Amino acid sequence: MSLLVTGSIGIDTVETPHGRVDGVLGGSSVYFSLAAALFTKVHLVGVVGDDFDMSLLDPLRAKGIDTRGVEVRKGSRTFRWQGRYSGAMNEAETLRIDLNVLAERGATLSPELLKTPYVFLANTHPALQRSIAEQLAAAKLVVCDTHNHWIMNESAALKRTLGSVHGIVLNEGEARTFTDESNLVTAGRKILGYGPRFVVIKKGEHGSLLVSRDDLFLAPPFPTEKTVDPTGCGDTFAGAMLGYLAAADRCDRGALRSAMARGSVTASFVIESFSIDALARVTPAEVEKRLATLREMARFD
Amino acid sequence: MSLLVTGSIGIDTVETPHGRVDGVLGGSSVYFSLAAALFTKVHLVGVVGDDFDMSLLDPLRAKGIDTRGVEVRKGSRTFRWQGRYSGAMNEAETLRIDLNVLAERGATLSPELLKTPYVFLANTHPALQRSIAEQLAAAKLVVCDTHNHWIMNESAALKRTLGSVHGIVLNEGEARTFTDESNLVTAGRKILGYGPRFVVIKKGEHGSLLVSRDDLFLAPPFPTEKTVDPTGCGDTFAGAMLGYLAAADRCDRGALRSAMARGSVTASFVIESFSIDALARVTPAEVEKRLATLREMARFD
Repeated sequence: MSLLVTGSIGIDTVETPHGRVDGVLGGSSVYFSLAAALFTKVHLVGVVGDDFDMSLLDPLRAKGIDTRGVEVRKGSRTFRWQGRYSGAMNEAETLRIDLNVLAERGATLSPELLKTPYVFLANTHPALQRSIAEQLAAAKLVVCDTHNHWIMNESAALKRTLGSVHGIVLNEGEARTFTDESNLVTAGRKILGYGPRFVVIKKGEHGSLLVSRDDLFLAPPFPTEKTVDPTGCGDTFAGAMLGYLAAADRCDRGALRSAMARGSVTASFVIESFSIDALARVTPAEVEKRLATLREMARFD
Repeated sequence: MSLLVTGSIGIDTVETPHGRVDGVLGGSSVYFSLAAALFTKVHLVGVVGDDFDMSLLDPLRAKGIDTRGVEVRKGSRTFRWQGRYSGAMNEAETLRIDLNVLAERGATLSPELLKTPYVFLANTHPALQRSIAEQLAAAKLVVCDTHNHWIMNESAALKRTLGSVHGIVLNEGEARTFTDESNLVTAGRKILGYGPRFVVIKKGEHGSLLVSRDDLFLAPPFPTEKTVDPTGCGDTFAGAMLGYLAAADRCDRGALRSAMARGSVTASFVIESFSIDALARVTPAEVEKRLATLREMARFD
């Protein structure tokens, strides 16, 4: 089954203890698409400004990602983000953010794209996510992401959006802020109360947690020793997860668990290089190999 | 096989968002002993002052723990700690600490106790840990704990101690400070360089990591929803781990993995009440039951 993702496409400048890159491809839907394309056919929808060099998307097209839904908006500028990671590199410090085209109206989805069975609504205003979700009556699975900004400022809108999606993927800090619960299992259950069937809480280097109506699952992280740039890690996790579910055309307990394990493993590649460098190179066979290692590392009697 | 633990016995005053307890039993070797006694015969060695009410140790004796090695030192006062947990309760804030008898000479170990095959040297001055380790020539397994205080002030002594033990259990912050490495796998490998066969890095609510000469293992945490008081959690983990190894009389890869899983599960009980209340009540059957749940929660294809 094919997978639609709507989200940001951006130009990043990133500093980590390993170096600095300037004006490289970034954005949630870019990382998501590349990860998902390891498993299934992906349609990418997003908006860039007329300053955007479309050849930056060549590595995505090389992976078979359909980029026809990327709108180049005349007179607008592309989203730009500048961030820095230091110390244990668990969290980015945002040095500069220019929303640019992201502050304007969202992308237009063609009637054909609205029929895509699997959909991921990456981080944007929850009201916009809901307006898209409500057009996806035929979708088998609609999952959204969110961001602390919306949790702090648009909490009511986000709660309404959660009534229109099947699942949400968010990080542990966001889950705690949103629910005012420090315990992540309790936080997950509280989010289930707003309507989704499952909540996936990403814990960075500590793996992720699934809280669903019929399951509680701890996905282990893949403990890589080479952390160059964590940018896009969470979007890569979600991309591999949704890509796996779309390919399997299932979203039961077992499929969600398998999907999250693939998310862990795929995310472990993206942090080994700047921007999309490692992610654009990794093959399904390499993901499978690391998955076998993860299985072995997590086994106990 | 029996297990010897040397470490602190104290009187704690603890505040958490769930309440406050004053003058309750605490100390690393107390939590360790109770957890280990779920699996094997434990000999507890430590020193208290003549202000200590020995009936506080009744719950330990009720579990068959040999407390004959607890020395009541005339004219000395018992170790006291006052701490507070807030927010996500990941770390205690020490409000007051009175080392008292812990600042004096250590406990005396009888020749008979020095023959115990499994030994845990809980947190104390690394030179003192080493002097005991060097008297344990016949021990099958000697494992130590440590503390940020020694890492900051007695790093050279700790490195020497690591040449005299088979394993070390420490928390993630300590591992990072000790090695100046943010990546925990790299930190673990660096610690192996000082001599031990294995390093167990405790990550609190995120589980634990084993780095050994021939293995890398991620032990999942048991995700309890009831966190009342995390005091003693790390010592309980170590107690169950060493207790399991002593009972199995093995310390190979598979045994270390099994032991850490039991550590995770046993620690999940202690945080559900203040002081030793839950730990003194839990039965081996309850540990086994939660272990089966953990196995199921960590399974993926």
